[in-house]
Amino acid sequence: MAIKIYGSFRSPFVMAAALTVYEKNQEFELVSVAFKSPEYLNNYNPFGKIPAYQDEDITLFESKAIMRYVATKYEGERAPFLLGSTVGEQALCNQWLEVNSHSFTPPLMEIALSFFRTPEGGPSVVEEAWEKLGKVLDIYEARLSASKYLAGDCYTLADLAHTPLFYVLKALIDEEKQNSLTSQRPHVYSWIQDISSRAAWKKLTARPENIHYKQR
Amino acid sequence: MAIKIYGSFRSPFVMAAALTVYEKNQEFELVSVAFKSPEYLNNYNPFGKIPAYQDEDITLFESKAIMRYVATKYEGERAPFLLGSTVGEQALCNQWLEVNSHSFTPPLMEIALSFFRTPEGGPSVVEEAWEKLGKVLDIYEARLSASKYLAGDCYTLADLAHTPLFYVLKALIDEEKQNSLTSQRPHVYSWIQDISSRAAWKKLTARPENIHYKQR
Repeated sequence: MAIKIYGSFRSPFVMAAALTVYEKNQEFELVSVAFKSPEYLNNYNPFGKIPAYQDEDITLFESKAIMRYVATKYEGERAPFLLGSTVGEQALCNQWLEVNSHSFTPPLMEIALSFFRTPEGGPSVVEEAWEKLGKVLDIYEARLSASKYLAGDCYTLADLAHTPLFYVLKALIDEEKQNSLTSQRPHVYSWIQDISSRAAWKKLTARPENIHYKQR
Repeated sequence: MAIKIYGSFRSPFVMAAALTVYEKNQEFELVSVAFKSPEYLNNYNPFGKIPAYQDEDITLFESKAIMRYVATKYEGERAPFLLGSTVGEQALCNQWLEVNSHSFTPPLMEIALSFFRTPEGGPSVVEEAWEKLGKVLDIYEARLSASKYLAGDCYTLADLAHTPLFYVLKALIDEEKQNSLTSQRPHVYSWIQDISSRAAWKKLTARPENIHYKQR
């Protein structure tokens, strides 16, 4: 059975799971789902979120669990190893994956979703999110001044998790705002260029299912 | 250098990191910190959160990264393995760790923090949190009807991450509310009893730094 990923590329989390599959040189079928349907809840993810993942061995949900599984299952297939190659690198990969979840993603998604719906807390919530994101990127700038990637010298899942999120954000915001993100943060700028120019990412965004956001 | 954990047992995330150290039969020193001080931000965690962790090899932050690191470093020392013993169990351990982060912890912390400060969104936010937590526990009930622990037959980090959170909640809420959590969910009830009666947890809560919450 081929790898199936359930969801849509509208979700950067679906893209992150799919990108991991491509980084390990595997193929997958993208299956669109009604994620609140009893069928999906019963068979794929009781929490009604995307992505879900299925292969001949397992059905799994939560994008970072899927990413770790794919990176482990196909670990020997092809560099990069994605999980870090030493215990220390693995620990830092795990640390920055948590930073991605708890510090980077929340303000970024607040900003991105404000293009599609009025934020519950009003426009000040979006202002605050920009401020938070800036502070997070200052910490990234310091980290990426000391090492090429978040976990060290090698590209890992910690970097990969960011690529679709920057993609969504940059597709939505205007050029001035884009420049403001990176103009004072040269290492963040180079890192985004680097992780966004990988062959696996180019292959993913060339798929017909890719979403082409309208510039405002 | 002995293991140092920075933070206070007021945080269930500090307790989860510390519990992992005890499950692997290691000792640690709990170091209280001013987590917004330049010294802590520069040397331990630029995001100004607890816990941070230090041993002779590494300085690390983010509780789940610390838990994975300790479980990996002392993997061979002593059962339980904590990370799952097969690729499939590892994947499910990772999946339920993410569920802990994204579905279980947010409503539980909303409820817990409402005992210490008025919620920003008013009392309806706490009502909603109770409803969300109930729905999450319904999914846990289904899962724990099929397997003894979240990832399968063995206790893993996915279970461990929940112990301090249930502890904080149960210390704060009255008996009626406690019963309402588990009276219709017998498998959740047994599971909480099980994970809360482990030797490592008893040893942790017997430490002088443990917080004894006042019952309301």
